[in-house]
Amino acid sequence: MDIVNIITKKKDNKELSYDEIKYAVEGYVNGDIKDYQMSSLLMAIVINGMTDEEIFNLTEIMLNSGDKLDLSSISGIKVDKHSTGGIGDKTTLVVAPLVSACGVPVAKMSGRGLGFTGGTIDKLESISGFNTSLDMNDFIKQVNDIKIAIATQTGNLVPADKKIYALRDVTGTTESIPLIASSIMSKKLASGADKIVLDVKVGKGAFMKNIDAAKKLSEIMIKIGKRFKKEVVALITNMDYPLGRAIGNGIEVKDAIDTLIGNGEERFTKLCLVIASYMVSLGKKINVSDALDLVKEKLDNKEAYNKFLELVKYQGGDINNIDICKNKYDIISDKEGYITDIDTLKLAEFANNLGAGRKTKEDNINYGVGILLNKKVNDKVSKNEVIGYVVSDENVDTTSLISYFTIKKENINEIDIIYDVIK
Amino acid sequence: MDIVNIITKKKDNKELSYDEIKYAVEGYVNGDIKDYQMSSLLMAIVINGMTDEEIFNLTEIMLNSGDKLDLSSISGIKVDKHSTGGIGDKTTLVVAPLVSACGVPVAKMSGRGLGFTGGTIDKLESISGFNTSLDMNDFIKQVNDIKIAIATQTGNLVPADKKIYALRDVTGTTESIPLIASSIMSKKLASGADKIVLDVKVGKGAFMKNIDAAKKLSEIMIKIGKRFKKEVVALITNMDYPLGRAIGNGIEVKDAIDTLIGNGEERFTKLCLVIASYMVSLGKKINVSDALDLVKEKLDNKEAYNKFLELVKYQGGDINNIDICKNKYDIISDKEGYITDIDTLKLAEFANNLGAGRKTKEDNINYGVGILLNKKVNDKVSKNEVIGYVVSDENVDTTSLISYFTIKKENINEIDIIYDVIK
Repeated sequence: MDIVNIITKKKDNKELSYDEIKYAVEGYVNGDIKDYQMSSLLMAIVINGMTDEEIFNLTEIMLNSGDKLDLSSISGIKVDKHSTGGIGDKTTLVVAPLVSACGVPVAKMSGRGLGFTGGTIDKLESISGFNTSLDMNDFIKQVNDIKIAIATQTGNLVPADKKIYALRDVTGTTESIPLIASSIMSKKLASGADKIVLDVKVGKGAFMKNIDAAKKLSEIMIKIGKRFKKEVVALITNMDYPLGRAIGNGIEVKDAIDTLIGNGEERFTKLCLVIASYMVSLGKKINVSDALDLVKEKLDNKEAYNKFLELVKYQGGDINNIDICKNKYDIISDKEGYITDIDTLKLAEFANNLGAGRKTKEDNINYGVGILLNKKVNDKVSKNEVIGYVVSDENVDTTSLISYFTIKKENINEIDIIYDVIK
Repeated sequence: MDIVNIITKKKDNKELSYDEIKYAVEGYVNGDIKDYQMSSLLMAIVINGMTDEEIFNLTEIMLNSGDKLDLSSISGIKVDKHSTGGIGDKTTLVVAPLVSACGVPVAKMSGRGLGFTGGTIDKLESISGFNTSLDMNDFIKQVNDIKIAIATQTGNLVPADKKIYALRDVTGTTESIPLIASSIMSKKLASGADKIVLDVKVGKGAFMKNIDAAKKLSEIMIKIGKRFKKEVVALITNMDYPLGRAIGNGIEVKDAIDTLIGNGEERFTKLCLVIASYMVSLGKKINVSDALDLVKEKLDNKEAYNKFLELVKYQGGDINNIDICKNKYDIISDKEGYITDIDTLKLAEFANNLGAGRKTKEDNINYGVGILLNKKVNDKVSKNEVIGYVVSDENVDTTSLISYFTIKKENINEIDIIYDVIK
């Protein structure tokens, strides 16, 4: 077999065999196939696409490139969740305790972020003392003890994806449903859960810009799940505006806590309840409407909040000591009207520039900085009203921030945060 | 400007601006843009193509990446030729003396081969003492003295093409009309000729497998020529069978000499006469039919042959000492009938394995080895007749070679060696 022939075959829009994909992926991982050859193959895949069979094979080959977690010693059906990524996405911090409080074990491996803000693990580390590095035995013991654990990936899961993902980022080959689907699903399958709920985000603050593409991505990920005998449900959700009120790390943990005690922003609260209800439905084999009732009950009676406190304590965190900078710099409305749009990406870039996220893998995150919005889309604001603030220890000029908010005389039609559910 | 955005634009099949192509090519040459980024961009170009404007700009930017030869101190119209490459292609060795004998100066820069056999320069070096490394002053003086010189490229012509070409070879991005056209034309434009005749080869032994693709390639190269105010004529020629009788280096020089003294294989002789006639027509501004008469006269009266001898002598070569191995190993027909097909690529691979060509840039060529065919397509052969032989100093098993010849009871329709002429 020869990599140039394999690249040429895909360039000519022909279907690659299992062995050809294996040769390319394994050769790339072990260094026989060079970056410049893999990037050429990836571009041919991005433009010409892949058949379902190719996508299944790519997923399987990536899955087999490293360790696989064995969660079989945790009793019950393990349900994992994955979000394709959004701005202010602290969903896991709310959903995991909700699901756990319903009696479904949550054994959640999570990542650090290389986006505008940190990932779930970074956010948790803004809680003083919170230990996210659990070894596998401790991780499983914790889930068996309190039905919830959130930790960084242990083991060498899907090294092929790690190497390919890093290459895609610098070669213009990120936008590809086959590559995204196989990347997400190989990692989810390696993480050992029995069932998976996917939160596929669409909109100005998401990777996917249109609902059709998100549906296609969801459908192929569900098919991959079927192929590996894992039930998968995909929610297609709106990501035009920041999720919840906060963008940052410590400030997002606080936002998650607000949500768990019933004071969350409405759309975000709904998102968390719906995702949790699908996870509970899968984990308890009950219908979604019953699951939603149960989840709401656990939110209202604070059992989910208490579960979060239990999680933080078990992993050594001090809930009274979350890293949030003390100085506030207000964002002030320059006119009266309704907020009809928010430039979510610009806000996220602003937070990133404050230090809320990494620009390269080696960067340190500043957990304390962030942005909090008091107002959301369709809220009425007066001239000179404070619509939010930036937290930072250093002096911040917030005057440019108001330009990221569109304020008009008329409000707009509400966009439901849940577009669709695909099973 | 950002290379990932440029790659993404081409992936999305949008036209790149002059500045974007310049940024990519210059960044690649100076190392800011990495191999894996250029190969991804190249694959996007291979699949999505380029507009004429993009091709013109790419050619110009590559042309400007290095030195340009100045042939203005040679009097007369300088006409260059280029072949897209074939098996047994010693055309330059015959055409250059033919054209020169007609009074048109031939200042030919040529390359070494990285194909099945050596290039024109390698072939000439099989003549003992032949010096192919001339400095620019000597090269020009020689053309002014005897109207012919053939030497390796001097100066650093089109370094961008060198680097991109080497990358294309290992990343499955060779098959692209925009990339081939800009590669050939940037080199031809840098070589300083006034007019250019292109020999675009089509067939089993050529890079281009169909006439339509060859026509498209020819048309865009002619358009590039127009853009740079250089007249270009393209001949589309058949490359299903070896050119002439020999495949190798020294043995091809002998084959060229046979052609110059009037004993050449018919189709190959015709190819040389036609290419030479178009060059003479351009160089002397006469019509092609008159030019063909003149070229034929110079072949028949041996002036072209004498010009070749003059060339060899001027560059220090000993025409009586050409490196051709003495031992012959016959290829013997296994049945009676007509040769209806020859697996030209297999023969070329056989010659390459003997050492007639390089496999990597660092390989040394064995000038002496090669294959000579006494019979060509449509020739009648008897059982056990010798249809050709291999020359080599080492023992060679030639039994497999007969399987590369198809021998049938009926002969086939002759394919003309010249398919088309495009101006």
